[in-house]
Parts: sequence; C-alpha cells; structure tokens
Amino acid sequence: MKKISRRSFLKTNLTAAVAAAAAGPLFTACSNAANVNRKTSLGSGKMKMSFRGVDLQLRHTFTISGFSRDVTPNIQVRLEYDGVVGYGEGGLPPYMTGQNVQTASEFLSKINLDQFSNPFLVEDILRYVDGIAPGMTCAKSAFDIALHDLIGKLVGQPCHRLFGYNPEKTPNTCYTIGIDTEEVVRQKTLEAAPYKILKVKLGVDEKTDKMLVNTVRSVSDKPMVVDANQGWKDKHLALDMICWLKEQGIMMVEQPMPKTVFDDMAWVTAHSPLPTFADESCQRLVDVPKLHGVFTGINLKLIKCSGLHEARQMIATAEALGMKVMIGCTTESSCAISAAAQIAPRMEYADLDGPLLITNDMFDGIKFIDGKITLNDRPGIGAELMTPWE
Amino acid sequence: MKKISRRSFLKTNLTAAVAAAAAGPLFTACSNAANVNRKTSLGSGKMKMSFRGVDLQLRHTFTISGFSRDVTPNIQVRLEYDGVVGYGEGGLPPYMTGQNVQTASEFLSKINLDQFSNPFLVEDILRYVDGIAPGMTCAKSAFDIALHDLIGKLVGQPCHRLFGYNPEKTPNTCYTIGIDTEEVVRQKTLEAAPYKILKVKLGVDEKTDKMLVNTVRSVSDKPMVVDANQGWKDKHLALDMICWLKEQGIMMVEQPMPKTVFDDMAWVTAHSPLPTFADESCQRLVDVPKLHGVFTGINLKLIKCSGLHEARQMIATAEALGMKVMIGCTTESSCAISAAAQIAPRMEYADLDGPLLITNDMFDGIKFIDGKITLNDRPGIGAELMTPWE
Repeated sequence: MKKISRRSFLKTNLTAAVAAAAAGPLFTACSNAANVNRKTSLGSGKMKMSFRGVDLQLRHTFTISGFSRDVTPNIQVRLEYDGVVGYGEGGLPPYMTGQNVQTASEFLSKINLDQFSNPFLVEDILRYVDGIAPGMTCAKSAFDIALHDLIGKLVGQPCHRLFGYNPEKTPNTCYTIGIDTEEVVRQKTLEAAPYKILKVKLGVDEKTDKMLVNTVRSVSDKPMVVDANQGWKDKHLALDMICWLKEQGIMMVEQPMPKTVFDDMAWVTAHSPLPTFADESCQRLVDVPKLHGVFTGINLKLIKCSGLHEARQMIATAEALGMKVMIGCTTESSCAISAAAQIAPRMEYADLDGPLLITNDMFDGIKFIDGKITLNDRPGIGAELMTPWE
Repeated sequence: MKKISRRSFLKTNLTAAVAAAAAGPLFTACSNAANVNRKTSLGSGKMKMSFRGVDLQLRHTFTISGFSRDVTPNIQVRLEYDGVVGYGEGGLPPYMTGQNVQTASEFLSKINLDQFSNPFLVEDILRYVDGIAPGMTCAKSAFDIALHDLIGKLVGQPCHRLFGYNPEKTPNTCYTIGIDTEEVVRQKTLEAAPYKILKVKLGVDEKTDKMLVNTVRSVSDKPMVVDANQGWKDKHLALDMICWLKEQGIMMVEQPMPKTVFDDMAWVTAHSPLPTFADESCQRLVDVPKLHGVFTGINLKLIKCSGLHEARQMIATAEALGMKVMIGCTTESSCAISAAAQIAPRMEYADLDGPLLITNDMFDGIKFIDGKITLNDRPGIGAELMTPWE
C-alpha cells in the first residue's frame, strides 16, 4: 500500500476538494478524495443535550374512541456534538398513560451522556437510555430521533440513505378523519382533497361506525383504511364489521379488538377478507413474534417503540415472520414526522399526517406532494428548526 | 432559513475545508462545515462490477466430520462507483453444495447494475440480486460485502460505526482445531497460544470426540467451545455428550444434531447445561423464528445468509426472540473476515480465524491482538487489497 505523509495527505485532499467543488457536488470531494482508505475521525468532545415541552395546536378538535382534544403536548430534544446539532421529538398524547411533559422531562434529565465518547455508539447509548426507566417511550423516541439526526448530519447523509431505502418508494400518507358528527366528518373529508388515502377512526358502536364510513363514502370514493382502536369487543362483531367494510371498498383494518385479545383476534385474521394490523397490541420489538398468526401486520409508531433504532429491528423481525409493516404517528410536528418518514419507503401504509393537523409547526421537513410522502436530501432526518430553540 | 447562493455556498465550504484541514481531522471539514443542513449529493455514473476466483492455501489440511481439504476456493467482487472501489469476498467450501467458482461466476455475471442510479439503494439492489437465483449465498455475500464496503467508503465511515456498534466490544476470536490425530491436535493446540478461546470440531463418534477434547485439554485449560457439525444422531447421545463437555469446562455447543431434527433438538436444548447454537439449521432470515425454543442461539455466517444486510436483520430477529448470536466463517481472507468483524461487537462468540489458517491473504484488514478481534477506523469493511486486482 502506498504510504503518504500527513502533509501530502492534506495537500492532496485540499486540491481534490477545490477541484471537486469547482466541478460538482461537495460529496465527491468529501468521500472520494478524502475518505477512501484513510482513517476516519470521530470528532471530539462530549454530547450536550437539552429538551423542552411544546404544545402543538390542533386545527380541529380530535376524537378517537375515548378521547377528545384541541392540543397535544410534545417533548423535543436537542443534541449537540462537535458543533453539529440534531433534533428529536415525541408526541405525548393522553393515551400514552403516565407520559407527559413533566414525566418526560424528568426522564430526560436522568440521561448522562458524559460516559459516551461519541454519538456513533448507538447500541450502547440507546440500551443505556432504555434501561434508565421502563416505559417513557415518547421521551426515548425523542432522544433516539435526535441521535439519528445528529449522526446523519455528522456523516453528511440523510437517514433514509444510511438505512438503504429508495426514497422514491414512499407511500401516500393516509389522512385521518376522527370520530365526529356527520357534518364535521363530511367537511373533513372534503378538506382532505389533496390526499389519496383516507383513514377513518371507528370503534364507537356498529351504528356510529357505519354512519362514519357512509358519511365519508357519500362525498369520496378514495381508497380508505380504518382504525377500530380496539373498539369491537366480540370476534363475530369484528368479523362482521370487517366483511361490511370490505364491501365499502376499505383496504385494511387496524386493531379491531382489545389489545390483549389474541386468540379471538387470530380467529378474526384467519377469516378476515382484509389484512389486519396491530396497533395497541404492538408496542415494542419483543411484541412482534407474539403477533405472528394474530395479525397480518404491525403498525409502528416511534413513540410506542422508543424510536427509529428499535423500529428498524421490528421491520427486520416482521420480515422474518412474513408480516407486513405500516407506520403511524400522533400529533407531531415535521420533526418527528420527518424522522418517521425516513423508514416510510419500507411501509405498506403510512399514516404521517401529524403536521397537517397542527397550526404551529416549528420545523420545515419532509413534504406531502399530491399526498405522497416526499423525502428530501438533507442530512439526518431532513427537518430544520425554523424558530429559535429556547 | 438563511438562503445562500451556490457561489457563496462553495466559498463557505472551501474556506471551512481549508481551515479545518489545517487544524485537524478532515472529518470535521466534511461533516460539520459542509454537510449540515445542506443538500447531500449521491455522486453520479453507474456502478461497475468485476469478480474473480481465488484459491486460498491452507496452513494445515482441514478436517471436519465428512470433509478434508488443503485449499479453499473463493469468489471476490470489486464494485466501483464514482471513482471509489469496494471489495467483497465469499468462501466456497465444499459443504456449500453446488457453489463453486464457476457457478458463483455465472451467478455474478447475471447481475445488471445499470438499472440502479446509485449504490445507496441497498434494499432494492440486494432484493434484486437475491431474486436472480435461489441459493448462491456465497456469491451473494461477496456482492453484499463489496456494496457495504463501497458505501462505507463513499460516506467515509467504517461499517461498524454506521451500524452503531462499539468497536471496543468485540469478543476474542475462537481458534479452530479440526478433526485430526492426537499428535496433530496437540500441535495445533500449542500453535493456538496467542488465542484465548479454542473451538474444537467434533461429531465423529463418542470415542473420537472424547479423545479430541481430552487431547486439547491435556495441553490447554483455555475456554473452549465445540462444534458437533450435526454429528450426534440421537438426542440422548447428544445430551450425554453435552453433559460430559460441561464437565470438561466447555462453554457452548454448536449444532449437536442433524439440521432438520427440531423436536429432539428442542428437547436437548431444554435439558442442556450448556447453550446450544444453530449452525447448519440456521441459514437465512426466515429460519430464525423457527429456531426459537430449539436452540439457545444462532451462528451467523455471511456465506450462509447472503451477507451483512441480512445478517443484521437476523440479529434483530434474534433479539426480538431473546436468542443469542454468534458469528462464524469459513476459510476466507481478511476481506470477508473484516466484513464479518464489523458486526462482531454484537456477538456472544466469534469464530473469525479464517485469515489465520491461510498462507496467501491478499487483504490487510482487521487484526487479532492477543486474540481479540480488533477493528480499525478505515471506511467500509476496513480491508485494503495489497496486490493488484487482475
């Protein structure tokens, strides 16, 4: 192997950088001239973390079976290393019991990153963070996203590229229509004009559920999926509803039955004319093998599973089991949504309409172009903070 | 967001690159100044692939139950993109039925990479390559390794860092002692002085197996694992042998019974005082869930599973199932071994002694320092070709 001195090494790199920058993308200069067959540096110093609670304002009062709200609290994380800053976020919807801005902040304040020499030690860092306390997956996910954003920026590549996904293969986002009166449902359906797939929340009772679907169908013949949010307590009702939904052109049903009802749910899936996806039944990695034969697929949400790192392990496990994957979200800004979108190319369905449902998005991130999730080429999660971090 | 013209963008980057290169590692210039919140480029052009067959010369005639050899043929892949070159390799041991230099070359010659705009489309590319023909995992792995090496070099980071592993957490490599006469076994054990863990190949018959272990133990009290290579056909014999091995201070047993014997193997594992690892029973990702409850863990070999990408999915699936992971190899140079070592930090055991057993290693790669697998900071798989590619 040819050996060169540090002096000629630097000279070669700088010459190449100047030539490449004049000729084309800087990436060429960084990777080809400088990084091949050289030692790579990790930067230096310690990681610094800060976090804050933020209230996201909803465009419409949002209702799913059991809850109604106008605002969603949210935890955001800022992680700095070597002058580079990564951001992360986790929604804190009321159904994530015990997780709110106060408990999330308490959790994050326990994280001591001084013990880690650099942010690339992802497995060690996330194992440590996960072990600090059980649960707290919204805060864990906010931290995980900030770490991925930071690493992508340090490496100079979008996460989706580091994950090996084809950014063109993202699905259309579902646009969610909550449980509401006929008039509001009709109005929301019309507002969803730019979006190609509707997701209707069900699970109230048979009559209301049918009203909701019929109301949407009265003004739209778009592809539709439904989320029953554990609403159908009896397996025969669940199957009857699914068969009826199939006739209305629905494509998929999420969480038809209560989350711990596995045997009946396996029976429903075995007889169902539509694919079934686990949402509440599927929280973290260890849940995935248990759902094999119970559901057709799983709905990943970063706030459930603790972030991108574990989500990717769940995707691998689902692939091993022949199960489908989709991704969902809660009310989140373009920070968490851009992070979730990094794995969207691998998803059968994606329900990432969070930023569309709020009025105070402080991040500029991935876009929905004619409803299609559209990734960008920015490093990390592809989101930029548009207002000062306070 | 502040907007800057292309002209001032280039100027800023170059100034930063010059300043940073003068001050310290180029990484700082590449990542911090240039890549943060900028569009990242993919390079341009097409990937170009070539490949060749190579014979690796063994130091000792190697015997495992059923086979004996002095040479191992090997397929090596060279993948070029945008002036950057990645290398990959797959051993072609005789037990990989139907895989030899000719069939591997025929397989690789079918790969048409013109349809892919860049090497980062890992999921698409590997899915396509895997779909060209069933089996052919040695060639597929050689290709997968070259792709990972190329990407690491394009990004300017070692694969282990892109995978999020702590390079300090690599295990000691096992040093393999094949089936041979007492004298040769004793000699090989003494030659293994620098290595901390011995792996003894068994599976001949009870008497020979005990002779092999006793011979090693007569000159060494090092930690030992054994590989029975499917040799024990009866579950009671298997369990008796494992109990006896436990008394000799053996730590783990690989593939005690024939690869398709699952029920009896589950019984053995349930009663075994030692962890059991699947080798021949575990080829690819879809096998992993089927081995839950049958073995304690799985032995990954890149030539079995088609490469690093699938190996990482298998690690995730094993984690979901609470199963342990180890990594093995065949007779391979420092190319394939350096690739396998990228995931070694996650492994319970690592049997990566391939380069130690050959006399014509044409790559300089990861090292064994006092027996410990020692990763380097080079981008990609960390191996450099030391002789011309012909």
